[in-house]
Amino acid sequence: MTIKAVVFDAYGTLYDVQSVADVTEDAFPGYGDIITQVWRIKQLEYSWLRTLMQRYQDFSVATRDSLAYTLRCLGLQHDEAIFARIIDKYRHLALYPDAVPALEAMKDRKLAILSNGSPDMLNALVRNSGLDRLLDATISVDAHKVFKPAPEAYTLIEEVLKVPPAEVLFISSNPWDACGAKAFGLNVAWIERVTPEAMALACVETETVAPLTMFKALRTQMDELGVVPDHRIHGLSELPALVSARS
Amino acid sequence: MTIKAVVFDAYGTLYDVQSVADVTEDAFPGYGDIITQVWRIKQLEYSWLRTLMQRYQDFSVATRDSLAYTLRCLGLQHDEAIFARIIDKYRHLALYPDAVPALEAMKDRKLAILSNGSPDMLNALVRNSGLDRLLDATISVDAHKVFKPAPEAYTLIEEVLKVPPAEVLFISSNPWDACGAKAFGLNVAWIERVTPEAMALACVETETVAPLTMFKALRTQMDELGVVPDHRIHGLSELPALVSARS
Repeated sequence: MTIKAVVFDAYGTLYDVQSVADVTEDAFPGYGDIITQVWRIKQLEYSWLRTLMQRYQDFSVATRDSLAYTLRCLGLQHDEAIFARIIDKYRHLALYPDAVPALEAMKDRKLAILSNGSPDMLNALVRNSGLDRLLDATISVDAHKVFKPAPEAYTLIEEVLKVPPAEVLFISSNPWDACGAKAFGLNVAWIERVTPEAMALACVETETVAPLTMFKALRTQMDELGVVPDHRIHGLSELPALVSARS
Repeated sequence: MTIKAVVFDAYGTLYDVQSVADVTEDAFPGYGDIITQVWRIKQLEYSWLRTLMQRYQDFSVATRDSLAYTLRCLGLQHDEAIFARIIDKYRHLALYPDAVPALEAMKDRKLAILSNGSPDMLNALVRNSGLDRLLDATISVDAHKVFKPAPEAYTLIEEVLKVPPAEVLFISSNPWDACGAKAFGLNVAWIERVTPEAMALACVETETVAPLTMFKALRTQMDELGVVPDHRIHGLSELPALVSARS
């Protein structure tokens, strides 16, 4: 089946959420990494838990609440300005270097983002990074008031792009997102990022791997959720050839 | 309103899930703690993700899958027998020492468990620990094929015990569970366990707190989910007085 639309997860896939560590390290020297790790774990947990509890609030709420939790648990005193400066980084995340070339090479397909981010957060991010000139749509799950990996989130792709799931390739580096998209019925490429932490884990003299390194590495490992993505790639640069091969 | 039924979460509330570390440490010396931490995080994640993905399988599947993930990621070779021995520990978890005295002191109320565990896992655990003589019911969310904190899970209390939410006190040490129960409409007591890790976190010279200690400690901290439990206690021994005071 020809791939007519290529749809990307945003956080961790096109944009490097770890780039937040620059700001957190600047605000709390020595804590940049641990804040970023705990914050991300809780941000995801809160999006899932709120969906399960039927208490949806958009992703900006989960993002703020999880940062508040993280700073409270770590006992880090802060004022409004510091908090706002950290949160603002989500509007200025770094693009992965291979994002723009990959998108440009696939201009003949429909290109879009499907993200848990709120419309406000996503629109700012896409505009600030210049991706607005390359994307046909920036789709937020907020239209259906559930977070990925709920199936209702993935139905938005067909609703907005008018391309059925069988003709969509969805790309995510987040294992739970890749599994959710596959369970829903999309074609899925999972990006396995070969980070220094993942390399350390692969070396496996695990006693020498610090726990924080390990928690970072775990984010890059495929989950056991009873579904397997169609493709496993190591960077966005592999996508244009993959899409052509499927056409 | 009089409390007619007192309902407990099982894992982490009546039973110490950290007691699994004895078996994991024995099977993989030096890794007992890290296995237990990662396993528990992924076990919860998988229960939530499968509910969201509408791919429910009972908790024994999430428990096995998350252990398989943990051992794979840590690069720990194992055979079937070791895997089975670790899993089997979930049928023989240690009761917290204050569990039996608290239950005995509240015999005049209906007493039950509401747990994400599968009926098979829970029945074995309750029998092996001798709680079957004290409980009126052991309720598994499996009857509704969703995991807590989905509201459908908490509706089972009224269905089974015939006591409406306003007359139920639900107890959990898991912050997300306490929040889910409160959002549903139960009276909720959250047990804040004062573990050595939580103490270390409270001391807050965080540079001196090892990341693994911190991840353990985070499990004991209240979440930011937009709801607050009615009561905050530090052990099961506080319950009889609390229940009497509300009657």
